[in-house]
Parts: sequence; structure tokens; C-alpha cells
Amino acid sequence: MADSLKDLQNAVEAFVAERDWAQFHTPKNLAMAVSIEAAELMEHFLWSDGAESAAPDAARKTLIAQEIGDVLIYLVRLGQVLGIDLITAATDKLVVNRDKYPIAKAKGRATKYLDLE
Amino acid sequence: MADSLKDLQNAVEAFVAERDWAQFHTPKNLAMAVSIEAAELMEHFLWSDGAESAAPDAARKTLIAQEIGDVLIYLVRLGQVLGIDLITAATDKLVVNRDKYPIAKAKGRATKYLDLE
Amino acid sequence: MADSLKDLQNAVEAFVAERDWAQFHTPKNLAMAVSIEAAELMEHFLWSDGAESAAPDAARKTLIAQEIGDVLIYLVRLGQVLGIDLITAATDKLVVNRDKYPIAKAKGRATKYLDLE
Amino acid sequence: MADSLKDLQNAVEAFVAERDWAQFHTPKNLAMAVSIEAAELMEHFLWSDGAESAAPDAARKTLIAQEIGDVLIYLVRLGQVLGIDLITAATDKLVVNRDKYPIAKAKGRATKYLDLE
Repeated sequence: MADSLKDLQNAVEAFVAERDWAQFHTPKNLAMAVSIEAAELMEHFLWSDGAESAAPDAARKTLIAQEIGDVLIYLVRLGQVLGIDLITAATDKLVVNRDKYPIAKAKGRATKYLDLE
Repeated sequence: MADSLKDLQNAVEAFVAERDWAQFHTPKNLAMAVSIEAAELMEHFLWSDGAESAAPDAARKTLIAQEIGDVLIYLVRLGQVLGIDLITAATDKLVVNRDKYPIAKAKGRATKYLDLE
Repeated sequence: MADSLKDLQNAVEAFVAERDWAQFHTPKNLAMAVSIEAAELMEHFLWSDGAESAAPDAARKTLIAQEIGDVLIYLVRLGQVLGIDLITAATDKLVVNRDKYPIAKAKGRATKYLDLE
Repeated sequence: MADSLKDLQNAVEAFVAERDWAQFHTPKNLAMAVSIEAAELMEHFLWSDGAESAAPDAARKTLIAQEIGDVLIYLVRLGQVLGIDLITAATDKLVVNRDKYPIAKAKGRATKYLDLE
């Protein structure tokens, strides 16, 4: 089992190479794949209310974990073909988000209310 | 700057705590957020063909990295509220995918052809 | 103002022709566009709970209507390039759904519960 | 078979009433459903290139039509619960889009190039 993001990246790369699938992995296709897997993840929460969604049973949780896995696998792959480091991208974006949602204004308020101000 | 997934997870947790946003972070809402950010990521490749999508200019690449960052941030957050380890989830899913797409059958063929067999 | 689906289809076709955009309108790109617009529509409900989402204020409702409009415009366009009649497609799918969710089994139960049976 | 949008709307309403599903149909849930079905529609085009996507075989085309149907069914339902007329929404949005993408500037150019100007 991979125990770090680096191990996961290596495993994804090997998986793709063994199947000769790099030819299909344009950023466009991979971004579509991320989005499709994200929708499959979301589907597990479709008809539940927010509170129910926090307590999936074990069978459901396994399926959710698999979809989370698929999203991350394609995201890792997209980072590879574009030469974008995932951790750096997310860390840099957090800095942007700190400016966008300053604590004084954002505290305890969902961003939807901020959007229209 | 965070230099590992663990650092990123800590930074995300602090970001949420400072804004008192945990109250909005049901798995349902976070899965929606992952999906919305994935669509924003995909939008950068909408009208390009596959080859063009592989060579974004620098300004576009920065925007793409930001959207990749947002997807990962919400995915990290979803893992936190559900108690699902992202790396384990993706590594386990790769094992499932190896069975689903055996090399002998999948080599050099996009999965769309496999789907209908 | 178009007062029927047929009028809308004609208006969409004219809009595309005037801009010489048919060259970009592969089914692949149009399906991406439908999905992106659907995510923008969904974003209006991201942080609200179900009850709140049923009572958007007037400004929000106008924005929601615009996103619904965009989804339908791209869906109309996708139907045009694939030669698929939207009303027939939806009507036929309702027949499939009637078999998939028989009243006796489905009454008063969200489909999520049916999925795992 | 429904032969107009009005007939489809009536059929959708009856389908929901027979199953007592209105209780699950918040705008939030329906917008999620539209997005999920849009992703399922998009998945049919994931690994094809643009040209291939224009010529699905008959079996694939039937599946695509079903997904188009599902998107429209949920869009119709969302319009019903929000009191938004779909044709009016799309027609009004086309007017907005005409201003956003004037012919002189947009002709023959994908909107991605316009975005950054």
C-alpha cells in the first residue's frame, strides 16, 4: 500500500504505463474524468439531508472512499501531464482564499452571502 | 508553504476553524463543492482540442493550478469530515482498477471500448 | 421572445450560425458545456440547506434562471448536432424510469435506498 | 408519447406524484441531480476525440439519448419547484449572451479567447 502522495503518484504512473494509456491522457480528457468522478462521489449524497450525509453506513462509506480515490487518482494524473504539483497548487490557493475570505468578514458566514456583497 | 499532504491538511483545518465554517461542511455540501470546483477546472479546457489543452500559456496555467488547488482543498476537507484517508482511498481504488482493467485486455484501448463488452 | 421549444431551437441555431461557432460544437464539447453550466446552476444552492434553497430572493432567482437557461441552450444544441429530439428522449426515459422505480416499491422512498437493494 | 414540452411537464409531475417524491425535490437536490445526470451524459464522450464523438454507433446513441432525457427531466422538475419557465429562461439568456458575445468580436472564435480579453 502506498503510504504517501509520492508513492501514489508512482503507482498511478505505473498503472498508466502498463496499459499504454498516456495517449488518451490529454489535460482536457483528464479534467473531464475528474469532473465525472466528482459527480459519482456527489451522487452518494444526493437524496440525503446534510445530517444524514455525515453518517453513511459501512457499505456506503466504502463506496464513497472509492469515489474519493478515483477523483484523487485523476487529479494526480492531471498534475503529472501538466507539470503542476498538487500540494503547491492547493497551498498557494489557500493563500489566495485567505485574502478572498478575510476572517473578520467571513467568520460564521457561508460564502454565498459574501458573493453578493 | 506546506510541503506535504499532512501540512496541507493542517492548513485546511486551520483555515476552516478560523472562519468557523465547520458548521457548513456536511459531506453533502463538500461533495458538491468538489464537483463545482472540478467543473471550473474543466472549463479551462472546454473549447480547446486535446492537443491544445496540453500547452496552456502561463496565465492559463496559473488559473488551472488554482482550480486544481480548490478541488484538492475540498477533497482534503471531505476526507476530514468523513474520516477517510485520501491516500489509502486512492491506493485501494487502484487495486480495484487493476482488476477491472487487466493489462491484457486494456492495453492501448480506451476504457470506453471496454465498457460495452 | 421565443414562446415554444421550436422557437428556442431556431434562435439557438441562428445564434450559433451568426458567430460561426458550429466548428466548435462537437458533441464532446457540448456535453462538457452542459455539465459546466449545470455546476454553475448548482453553485447557487451550495451552502444553503434544502429548505432555504426553495426560497431564493429575487436577485438570486434571476441568476438561477440564467443558469437554467444556459443548461437548456447547450442541451438544445447537443440535441441538434446529434439529431436527438429532446422531448422524445425525455419521454422515452420516463418510460424506462417507470419500470426502474415501480410505484409499489418506490413510493415515499428516495432512490438512494432502492439503489442498494 | 409526449409531443410537446407541456406534455412532458405533465408527465414528470404525474411521475413524481405517483411516487410521493415531491418531499425530496428541494431545488438543491434537483440541481445536484441535473449536474449528476449531465456528468453521466458527458461520460459517453470521455475518451473519444471531438470527431469520433459526432458519430456514436446506434447502441451508444440510445444511451446518450437516455442521459439527455434525464438531464431534461430534472431540469423540468427544477423549473416546476422554483416557478421558473424553462423556455423563457433560455430565451432571456440568449439575449444576455448576444450582448456578451457580439458577432463582430465573437465570429469564428471560441469563447475561451474572449474570456481573457
